[in-house]
Amino acid sequence: MELQIDRERLSRELDELGAISAEPAPVVTRVVFTEADLRGRRFVKDLCIEAGLEVREDPIGNTFARWTGSAPDIPAVATGSHIDAIPNAGRFDGTVGVLGGLEAIRSLRRTGFQPRRSIELMVFTSEEPTRFGIGCFGSRMMAGALPIAAGDKLRDPEGKSLDDVRRAAGFTGDLSLIPVSKEKYSAFIELHIEQGPTLEREQVDIGIVTAIAAPATLRIEIEGEGGHAGALLMPQRRDAFLAAAEIALAVESAAKATGAIDTVGTTGICDIFPRAVNSIPSRARMEIDVRDIDGTRRDVVLASISRAAEEIASRRNVTLRNELLNADPPASCDPGAVAELETACQTHGASYRFMISRAYHDSLFMSLIIPTAMIFIPSRRGVSHRPDEYSSPEAIATGALVLAETLSRLSRE
Amino acid sequence: MELQIDRERLSRELDELGAISAEPAPVVTRVVFTEADLRGRRFVKDLCIEAGLEVREDPIGNTFARWTGSAPDIPAVATGSHIDAIPNAGRFDGTVGVLGGLEAIRSLRRTGFQPRRSIELMVFTSEEPTRFGIGCFGSRMMAGALPIAAGDKLRDPEGKSLDDVRRAAGFTGDLSLIPVSKEKYSAFIELHIEQGPTLEREQVDIGIVTAIAAPATLRIEIEGEGGHAGALLMPQRRDAFLAAAEIALAVESAAKATGAIDTVGTTGICDIFPRAVNSIPSRARMEIDVRDIDGTRRDVVLASISRAAEEIASRRNVTLRNELLNADPPASCDPGAVAELETACQTHGASYRFMISRAYHDSLFMSLIIPTAMIFIPSRRGVSHRPDEYSSPEAIATGALVLAETLSRLSRE
Repeated sequence: MELQIDRERLSRELDELGAISAEPAPVVTRVVFTEADLRGRRFVKDLCIEAGLEVREDPIGNTFARWTGSAPDIPAVATGSHIDAIPNAGRFDGTVGVLGGLEAIRSLRRTGFQPRRSIELMVFTSEEPTRFGIGCFGSRMMAGALPIAAGDKLRDPEGKSLDDVRRAAGFTGDLSLIPVSKEKYSAFIELHIEQGPTLEREQVDIGIVTAIAAPATLRIEIEGEGGHAGALLMPQRRDAFLAAAEIALAVESAAKATGAIDTVGTTGICDIFPRAVNSIPSRARMEIDVRDIDGTRRDVVLASISRAAEEIASRRNVTLRNELLNADPPASCDPGAVAELETACQTHGASYRFMISRAYHDSLFMSLIIPTAMIFIPSRRGVSHRPDEYSSPEAIATGALVLAETLSRLSRE
Repeated sequence: MELQIDRERLSRELDELGAISAEPAPVVTRVVFTEADLRGRRFVKDLCIEAGLEVREDPIGNTFARWTGSAPDIPAVATGSHIDAIPNAGRFDGTVGVLGGLEAIRSLRRTGFQPRRSIELMVFTSEEPTRFGIGCFGSRMMAGALPIAAGDKLRDPEGKSLDDVRRAAGFTGDLSLIPVSKEKYSAFIELHIEQGPTLEREQVDIGIVTAIAAPATLRIEIEGEGGHAGALLMPQRRDAFLAAAEIALAVESAAKATGAIDTVGTTGICDIFPRAVNSIPSRARMEIDVRDIDGTRRDVVLASISRAAEEIASRRNVTLRNELLNADPPASCDPGAVAELETACQTHGASYRFMISRAYHDSLFMSLIIPTAMIFIPSRRGVSHRPDEYSSPEAIATGALVLAETLSRLSRE
């Protein structure tokens, strides 16, 4: 039987998973270990079990659904992504790699194919940094890139520890069991939406990712002095929000100043305290995201932001706490896996181009322990992290087909 | 018996009311019609009843506690303030005028004094704009300065209407019954903390307020375009928060540009949506407070902020909604009431100075229907709207004594 993706079923399952959300459709909000996330996990696990896969979870909730190969003891081939979603997100970020990965496995089973290596679908916990301020802590811990002790210290905005939250969600094992040895897997391929406009603009089916940009997150806390907005005169003020406003503009300037199109800097969070129209802000807390495909250039931008923040704080007589939450190195994809993706595209007549991932993914961490590559499919208007995020059923099916072909090749070896 | 304030009792009652808060001491958070506000109201009403006053509430929760005079049908003399408190506030803003007003009345009763005019303590609903974005809506409605139809449209951040919220709090009467006719009261005197540093710095006991600064509130909503912080490149961005940051700095510049020390401009609220570190802000919502003792100069600042906001929005390709929530005229205090306050200070050997109120108060609206004046007492370091807001028991007692003397004089006439 010919290798074929069940496009309608895959689209339907993406819609069903999209409807599992803390907010009404079309908004997807599925923050790690909330009720919506747990329902989403249940939905995916049930589909995996129905597909005949053997499901296992690690102590942080990373989920592994295995199709055991004829040589079950040699390194397996893996695919996967995440299902958590930031507030006010869409249906496709992460989920295309999870449900598309599952459909790729089902499509191989339908052909009667029998893999030599086991094939495994991975669903990583919390690719998004929403709740604990750090992205990819599931795959990060698997790769040993987040020490268990550091994971223990993570707190959500309500002050709950990661450890308490995962236990309440039913994941109680010893965290030291999470890291995965380099010998367990021979390849990892992640299918994902591009989250940028390139493939759509160039009318190309598949992006074969050769490198993943280097992300860094800064948290800046500013402490000034509050007071009554009517009574405290302008020269006496130490307004924390005005310092934050200047720093946000400095982030933009620093990112633009490299002259490289690949440098981006974003202030996505700026909370003001006490947040009252008639009170001068006494505190502000910003989270800043800086990325580049060139790690050195990114670090120059980080240093420039820190210098600007110090200057602003000193001039405005406010105090500053500047914390680098993470600064991961950029990742190169595995040349062998990239070559297999190219062959798979050619086999099925899919047009393709090589490209950089400017968003970061669990692949960044899998690449530390497994030869890794990524498949991108077009995102309408490059839009992501929004309810109107969209990839067509045809585009998703093409991605899943290329993934299935690649898994089949890699698992035969 | 000599007129005397029970300083210890008054301080104890202020502490007890301060402990009625949505947050643990020393933080006072008592937002209108929340459980803490309702408990605070109960506490004050019980004290009024215990003092022998007759308590009545209007349909928006403004509370009136009356000591009926020997000529009950002629216009009464009133005093009072508010007990609601912004998040993370202190114990003295408003409450000094309510509990100090009550103690002034009790002190007069203890001397055996019998007023000719009735003396009434007023506790106004929601002097603070926290919940519905508009300050003083209790006194505003009493003065007819907030049309009932406009009041009906007010919504809190959860989208609840003022009407639903007041009904849930037990205030169900017809809102058209709130406005008070000009013939009902002959004078209104509000005792309040200064919320500025002048009296402390000059070591003066009492500030006699001659005018109240003109406040205005702008709400600016910005709509840009969201997207993934890694994937959407800098030249393609329409970041709503960066526009807000520039506008906040423009507010500061416009307030400073008048060259007058009395002009102040504050951005106390700036909410970002979706508020995720890896998402470009698609929307921002700011609330801006501008005040001056000169109404014309204040309006020049408002116009300058609006012009700057338009320029910023156009340059950054974001859309703007600019709404003037309120822009009240400045108030002059009543010369007769001011003269009585001066005599009262002299009678009891309190040092005093005339001054401007830069914060605004329910007196601003009472002055529209009743001859009004205000008594200020020193605030430590000028601090207000913060948990460390402080006025000494001695300073509070002096304020209450001057108030009692003034009420006695005004109620004899």
